[in-house]
Amino acid sequence: MSLSVGVIGLGYFGPHLARNVASGRETKLVAIADRDPARRALFTAQYPWAKVYDDGLALIADPSIDAVVIATPLFTHAELTRAALAAGKHVLVEKPMAPSVAECEELVAHAERVGRVLMVDHTLLYKDSVRKMHELIAGGALGRVLYVDAVRINLGLFQPDTNVIWDLAPHDVSILDLILTQTAGATPRWVSAVGVSHYGTHENLAYLTIGYDGSLLAHVHVNWVAPVKTRRITIAGTRRMLVWDDTAPVEPVKLYESSVDVARIDKQHAYELNIQYRTGDIVAPKLDGREALAGVISTFAAAALRGEPSPSDAQAGLRVVRILEAAQRSLADGSARVSL
Amino acid sequence: MSLSVGVIGLGYFGPHLARNVASGRETKLVAIADRDPARRALFTAQYPWAKVYDDGLALIADPSIDAVVIATPLFTHAELTRAALAAGKHVLVEKPMAPSVAECEELVAHAERVGRVLMVDHTLLYKDSVRKMHELIAGGALGRVLYVDAVRINLGLFQPDTNVIWDLAPHDVSILDLILTQTAGATPRWVSAVGVSHYGTHENLAYLTIGYDGSLLAHVHVNWVAPVKTRRITIAGTRRMLVWDDTAPVEPVKLYESSVDVARIDKQHAYELNIQYRTGDIVAPKLDGREALAGVISTFAAAALRGEPSPSDAQAGLRVVRILEAAQRSLADGSARVSL
Amino acid sequence: MSLSVGVIGLGYFGPHLARNVASGRETKLVAIADRDPARRALFTAQYPWAKVYDDGLALIADPSIDAVVIATPLFTHAELTRAALAAGKHVLVEKPMAPSVAECEELVAHAERVGRVLMVDHTLLYKDSVRKMHELIAGGALGRVLYVDAVRINLGLFQPDTNVIWDLAPHDVSILDLILTQTAGATPRWVSAVGVSHYGTHENLAYLTIGYDGSLLAHVHVNWVAPVKTRRITIAGTRRMLVWDDTAPVEPVKLYESSVDVARIDKQHAYELNIQYRTGDIVAPKLDGREALAGVISTFAAAALRGEPSPSDAQAGLRVVRILEAAQRSLADGSARVSL
Amino acid sequence: MSLSVGVIGLGYFGPHLARNVASGRETKLVAIADRDPARRALFTAQYPWAKVYDDGLALIADPSIDAVVIATPLFTHAELTRAALAAGKHVLVEKPMAPSVAECEELVAHAERVGRVLMVDHTLLYKDSVRKMHELIAGGALGRVLYVDAVRINLGLFQPDTNVIWDLAPHDVSILDLILTQTAGATPRWVSAVGVSHYGTHENLAYLTIGYDGSLLAHVHVNWVAPVKTRRITIAGTRRMLVWDDTAPVEPVKLYESSVDVARIDKQHAYELNIQYRTGDIVAPKLDGREALAGVISTFAAAALRGEPSPSDAQAGLRVVRILEAAQRSLADGSARVSL
Repeated sequence: MSLSVGVIGLGYFGPHLARNVASGRETKLVAIADRDPARRALFTAQYPWAKVYDDGLALIADPSIDAVVIATPLFTHAELTRAALAAGKHVLVEKPMAPSVAECEELVAHAERVGRVLMVDHTLLYKDSVRKMHELIAGGALGRVLYVDAVRINLGLFQPDTNVIWDLAPHDVSILDLILTQTAGATPRWVSAVGVSHYGTHENLAYLTIGYDGSLLAHVHVNWVAPVKTRRITIAGTRRMLVWDDTAPVEPVKLYESSVDVARIDKQHAYELNIQYRTGDIVAPKLDGREALAGVISTFAAAALRGEPSPSDAQAGLRVVRILEAAQRSLADGSARVSL
Repeated sequence: MSLSVGVIGLGYFGPHLARNVASGRETKLVAIADRDPARRALFTAQYPWAKVYDDGLALIADPSIDAVVIATPLFTHAELTRAALAAGKHVLVEKPMAPSVAECEELVAHAERVGRVLMVDHTLLYKDSVRKMHELIAGGALGRVLYVDAVRINLGLFQPDTNVIWDLAPHDVSILDLILTQTAGATPRWVSAVGVSHYGTHENLAYLTIGYDGSLLAHVHVNWVAPVKTRRITIAGTRRMLVWDDTAPVEPVKLYESSVDVARIDKQHAYELNIQYRTGDIVAPKLDGREALAGVISTFAAAALRGEPSPSDAQAGLRVVRILEAAQRSLADGSARVSL
Repeated sequence: MSLSVGVIGLGYFGPHLARNVASGRETKLVAIADRDPARRALFTAQYPWAKVYDDGLALIADPSIDAVVIATPLFTHAELTRAALAAGKHVLVEKPMAPSVAECEELVAHAERVGRVLMVDHTLLYKDSVRKMHELIAGGALGRVLYVDAVRINLGLFQPDTNVIWDLAPHDVSILDLILTQTAGATPRWVSAVGVSHYGTHENLAYLTIGYDGSLLAHVHVNWVAPVKTRRITIAGTRRMLVWDDTAPVEPVKLYESSVDVARIDKQHAYELNIQYRTGDIVAPKLDGREALAGVISTFAAAALRGEPSPSDAQAGLRVVRILEAAQRSLADGSARVSL
Repeated sequence: MSLSVGVIGLGYFGPHLARNVASGRETKLVAIADRDPARRALFTAQYPWAKVYDDGLALIADPSIDAVVIATPLFTHAELTRAALAAGKHVLVEKPMAPSVAECEELVAHAERVGRVLMVDHTLLYKDSVRKMHELIAGGALGRVLYVDAVRINLGLFQPDTNVIWDLAPHDVSILDLILTQTAGATPRWVSAVGVSHYGTHENLAYLTIGYDGSLLAHVHVNWVAPVKTRRITIAGTRRMLVWDDTAPVEPVKLYESSVDVARIDKQHAYELNIQYRTGDIVAPKLDGREALAGVISTFAAAALRGEPSPSDAQAGLRVVRILEAAQRSLADGSARVSL
């Protein structure tokens, strides 16, 4: 059994998703849609067997299609997803799911009601390095996580209609959701954000802080005006520490045999903390090299065909937008902590 | 004419300061003081000509001494500085100047009243790489500064009686004071800080945000529980950007011919921003290799002997402590912005 | 006017060459050939307008074709090139031109006789970083070149029918030809090579030394059994030095303001050398990012249509093979120096 | 029982050796000697208890001394070592032992005859990273070693009276002696060297190739005219590979789970090699941080006091000079292979 998939939107991400649908073991590319005739012509030549639509809603209405991939601009996500679910299709939508929590909640409820899969393309969760990082954390290699520090900066393409938080932070927030919330059961309690706009009206630099129960803290630096492209996440745990450097040409994940050992010592009937450091080998684990989007598509197919779980399912997509929206509110309110 | 100097405290920094006093062109090491007999014996062997005291106040009372270097624990700075100024000595004190703004203000006023130099050993300001960075910014190489992002993290020695802000942030805050306040006239308006304590009661991880007029922002990450030692400051300007990496074995300063060019374009009578990127050569300027502490001592001597200015004078030292104290208050108040 | 081109061989390099022929400003992709029906089908779908041949000689016989690109295994280069020249076509052939100096000389003479362009795809010469390196050297930035040290190593794909010299060294030898012979007029005088075969019969590790007039020396390390992929060329000159690191994710070319200054000093009527070092800024020049193969194709078109020069023309291709063949002879003769 | 040691020569290495003698658990610094009154005064202040001599031979004649450390220029090594052995002292001499094989052989024989320890200060053998590398190889982590590639280059201090081989290669040749000859029993059979002198008469750039039995090869690049300081040794084995980067600020030793697997496969009654690659984790082992010279001195003491073995004993020192002298002969003979 395989999933008949239509891809809507052939701009930047759409073609890569279409290619992986076409080459997927359990997926068939049966239709494509784009408003631009030149894009339609280009991909008709590449996938001559696929039906071609100039409108996403028309593709959605095609009864031969089981599932749709929505790779259109953010402001269209909700309308297209709603229509696709109403037509009984499974949906994989580009990240973020929708521009507001209210819309996401509506879509999540809709998907549950009709019993269809709604999944978000948080691509990084399917990258070999992130899967390895997740595997290590889930296996207990780090012990209990103490903090996560993420940096995602570059001299980047300003997005005309959004700020750097909505553009870059979904990547890191989806990873936080996977490794802290899904894996360790940590619930984010508040978000604070500070940012500045040096050009125009949208923030091009922002720092997000996310507070969890206990002393767990996550911090994300996103920036479109930085001289050196950096994509780095540092995670410290009680047993080990880990750095993921997504721009490193080799050894993107490094596991450090470093930790702080603390003991309560009874010194003349007054307890005192004895803090010591442990450093040891550094290991760069071998990765499997599998393309992230291939994993996105195969996970989507497994969810639609057999109900298998996905790290970027509808609830995860909603949780990510909750944090983005809270950060936006904090920005507008002088960095006040916004409860979740 | 040369300055007769006594050094109080022969622990970690004192010996380095004493060595540079002894080898300075305009300074003579005439006395040393330490409570520990073993330290006194060690440095008596090294500087047999210097008088030796077991008490800092006794050294201060020595009429043959023009100036004292105070390299003792933070809680003793105010008392020793006060005594030295009262005895008519010039004072170079380890950073930070004192643990509170109130004490710093009192010492600054005292020094002005008695007409003596009070200078703080913000050593990094005298490092060749920081001097080069300052020279580039002061010369206009970056244009107007947009933001400063500082990272100072490592698996470090927990200080038993203070938190990571008071331990590590003085370095970065003193550099911010030099390149933003002294050089560009930018006044810090508020400070916000978030931090956590994973072991014991003092924060081992903290993020500081400092707001200036206009859209200028500075952010400092200090951390004792990080796997990779990092000392990096990134500065973006309207014309160029700069990265200072103090752990790089070569090329610690890099100047990037990168910037954002923005133009207001009249599009059918509605103005629209046209944002473009410029990237170009990267230059790692040659540094002079001079030891930072030699510069500290020669600047101190020039200030004491001839009234020459210093980037870490009493007012600068006070401004640094103002920011540290405000950060501490913000920490205690749920990261609220504390006005300066 | 544009050049009608047929591409023979659709294995590894052929498809990239075909794509650049198809998108070239002065070239048209009019025919493709491959023995494998699956490859033909794949590229027919991509270039539906191109004629398809199952045999290179049949493509060569097509009178509508002005020029052929030969991207077939090395042992077929001579026969196909010979046939194409005989049919009056211009030829761009994969590197190296042919497996022996004798065959290369015959092909060079043939091309001259029939007045057609014969060019070799020494791709690296057209890479932005190599063009920048060449521009700097040709412009005198380095002064007189003292030596070139090249390292091209990795855990690589053993070639079943050749050794590491014929596989990897053509890249570096073609660059030496450009920057030393073409640009500076330096003539290689001898080659020495040492190598070992740890698996099977072909050398998987080799060091080549190439001697030029004066004290100019080039050295090339090629290796299929190395843990870290390295592609680095260091060039020292009398005025400056340069390092090209083709695996660096950023700043692949670095120009060092470093040199040795030497002066003859008359010391008590005996001359003595006074040697001093000069170090200064390091500059990473901005590159233009243009794809190398686009430059190969446009240079080929310019040569065929207007007789413009090429850094990898037939004579250059021959000079490269002369050095490879001499290295092979040296290997067989206990590393003896083989004159050129 | 402890060893009473005199140090002759207080130039560059002498003071470091004296400091480690003074702080050694089994050594006492009892005397120092230097021809320069200023150096004598400086170290008298530091070691007021030590006897001071203006002449090495006078120190050697002192009956209260058990052992001497000779840290004088190379041309004096033989005379001073000879005198010290004749006076019944144990000797630790700076590397290389002496400028010729003949002199080394004489000194080795002399030491054996008088039953005294003669050890060479091949300091790198005692560095924590080299000890770890040796431990891994001796423990079989790499399997059988296939080749060693060493690079030791920088913009360096030209030595006025020697070439770059005698200046820099002793380091790498002593490491080759330890890990190939002492540990794996591999005997060097021939040496070939090529070099050039761009300034003056001594070679400032040289490549050495050392052939062993089987297909084992070592190659050393030494260079005083290179823009980037590099100290790197790559070792490939049948099971794993290792890189030692002595300039890396962290992780100087990396162990690669990379190898080539080869199998003879019977293909239609003809055997064919099936070559495959294996890559895996990369491990940077934790090092102990112990100062190399402390290990030199404690090993010397253990050899003198208890006859314990040393990796840089007289025979090792002689083997190193054998290779250097052969390289020198090869240089003079057009890179011909010189048998050992």
